[in-house]
Amino acid sequence: MKVSAFASPGPNQPLEPFSYELGTLGSEQVDIKIHNCGICHSDISMMNDDWGMSAYPIVPGHEIIGEVIAKGDAVKNINVGDKVGLGWFSASCMSCHECMDGSHHLCASAEYTIGGRHGGFADYVRSHWSWAIPLPEGINMDKAGPLLCGGITVFNPIILSGVKPTDKVGVIGIGGLGHMALKFLNKWGCEVIAFSSNPSKKESILEMGATKVVDSTNPEELEKIAGSLNFILNTANVTLDWNSYLVALAPKGKFHNVGAVLEPMAIPAFTLLTGEKSVGGSPLGSPALTSTMLQFCVRHNIYPITEEYAMTDVNEAIAHLKSGKARYRIVLKN
Amino acid sequence: MKVSAFASPGPNQPLEPFSYELGTLGSEQVDIKIHNCGICHSDISMMNDDWGMSAYPIVPGHEIIGEVIAKGDAVKNINVGDKVGLGWFSASCMSCHECMDGSHHLCASAEYTIGGRHGGFADYVRSHWSWAIPLPEGINMDKAGPLLCGGITVFNPIILSGVKPTDKVGVIGIGGLGHMALKFLNKWGCEVIAFSSNPSKKESILEMGATKVVDSTNPEELEKIAGSLNFILNTANVTLDWNSYLVALAPKGKFHNVGAVLEPMAIPAFTLLTGEKSVGGSPLGSPALTSTMLQFCVRHNIYPITEEYAMTDVNEAIAHLKSGKARYRIVLKN
Repeated sequence: MKVSAFASPGPNQPLEPFSYELGTLGSEQVDIKIHNCGICHSDISMMNDDWGMSAYPIVPGHEIIGEVIAKGDAVKNINVGDKVGLGWFSASCMSCHECMDGSHHLCASAEYTIGGRHGGFADYVRSHWSWAIPLPEGINMDKAGPLLCGGITVFNPIILSGVKPTDKVGVIGIGGLGHMALKFLNKWGCEVIAFSSNPSKKESILEMGATKVVDSTNPEELEKIAGSLNFILNTANVTLDWNSYLVALAPKGKFHNVGAVLEPMAIPAFTLLTGEKSVGGSPLGSPALTSTMLQFCVRHNIYPITEEYAMTDVNEAIAHLKSGKARYRIVLKN
Repeated sequence: MKVSAFASPGPNQPLEPFSYELGTLGSEQVDIKIHNCGICHSDISMMNDDWGMSAYPIVPGHEIIGEVIAKGDAVKNINVGDKVGLGWFSASCMSCHECMDGSHHLCASAEYTIGGRHGGFADYVRSHWSWAIPLPEGINMDKAGPLLCGGITVFNPIILSGVKPTDKVGVIGIGGLGHMALKFLNKWGCEVIAFSSNPSKKESILEMGATKVVDSTNPEELEKIAGSLNFILNTANVTLDWNSYLVALAPKGKFHNVGAVLEPMAIPAFTLLTGEKSVGGSPLGSPALTSTMLQFCVRHNIYPITEEYAMTDVNEAIAHLKSGKARYRIVLKN
């Protein structure tokens, strides 16, 4: 089957129409007709080879919503006609310790949807059945795409860190990821502090479910909440004054990083030690947890705030995202 | 009551005989006749004002074993004649959130046994009843002292990190703290890797319960165990190649620091993120957990390896500790 897509021919180049042949469907694979696909910052990182692992031409797109149109004969759990979501991963080995333990997202040989194969800025995409997540009934398919990457990236830390409804929590960076985190944590029952460097977003941040907005550029504001937060989720991918956030944690508090910060974090051992605090990180989440998250989203009507573009306007959409003006996640529609 | 003690008159000075008046016993306090007292590296740090919080003259000593000889009229749980242990803390407020939550060691106004008051290189010491931990029957009092500081410092992380008998774990730095950690983790049922820079200790490290000794000065040895450890406890207080240990962790692994490293730790966010790993720290442990630990020690016959000196030979004992030749913890006996 021939796929019509948009691909980057090399680093820092616009996307161009591109077609490729999918080839023979593997026995454990499904083919998905794409309804829509979100744009994630990591699509841009991969287009520009920021992480040194891009193969060109590259068809980005890994927040995919679509319908299964074909399946191999060993596919489990999924039938032709099922609506599914596909995120950052498109396969994992299914037999290593992590896969067998339900942590397929930590499989050392997991396949990235846009790593050495082609993603969702296209009309069709292929994946292993395990990562084609069946969508729960009643989900808003127009807005669900970004949940498959950005959503699970911020949902998994809430589970991993054992965040409780009684907790006071903070979210750093209220963009594509951070705004979804606010919505989750609000429905979790938490008191939610949003750290933002952009005062123009304040009103909408409160609407998303934050209890309070703290100006992250003002050290005094941070000092005022010292010792108060049980959990801080960092979605920003820049170097911060880590210690000031660690100080903002309550005793036993957890700082969790999902921002792909390239420079090592300078973490004062004493701050961790005296307050029994910790710093962790995580990549996306497992298929099982993604499924749990989607059900939670339907139950609580949690969706990203999206702007819609036609798939054919992908370059315009990417320019808008790069400008920092996207509110808050862009979805490309076929 | 007059206390005969040994005190440092100022930084980097030997201890001298010193006496002071205890004053009136508070209603919630107990006075303890000291049988023996361990020497901890933090005694030396406090003698030298390394942490900028020493008050002179200072009577060090916070690994105290003794007998209660007097108690105030509001003391709970303890009677005159009881054998008790006293560690780094000698009081906490008993009413803040952390105290009420059972984490008295995280009380912001906790009193240090040797911080602005006098410790255990003496014949008597005073403490709040809550931190005078009753010793379980059958305990070896000659060797129990170091459990009250070094012991609980390495025991608490095992509990905090949820270490399981099925885990493969590592301990960095096999000295006063590390050797107790090996003994705990061996009895915990774990496979235990000891990281040591001192090959002369290998035989005795295996005797303590390590399954294997890895030369921490050899990067190749570390690479060989990449991705294998569920938990690493660092007891060294120097800057390490943090990433190589984080890489040695299995997915979801936890690195826990109890070494008082002064320089910020350079932690690569990517290593945490891709492996769902974390870095934590902790200070000692609560009275309740200390009590639980002492019972575990009696049940499994876990004690530090100690060398005994007379209290009057305290300067000689400290010189021996500073030489790095102490195997592994020194106890001063009255």
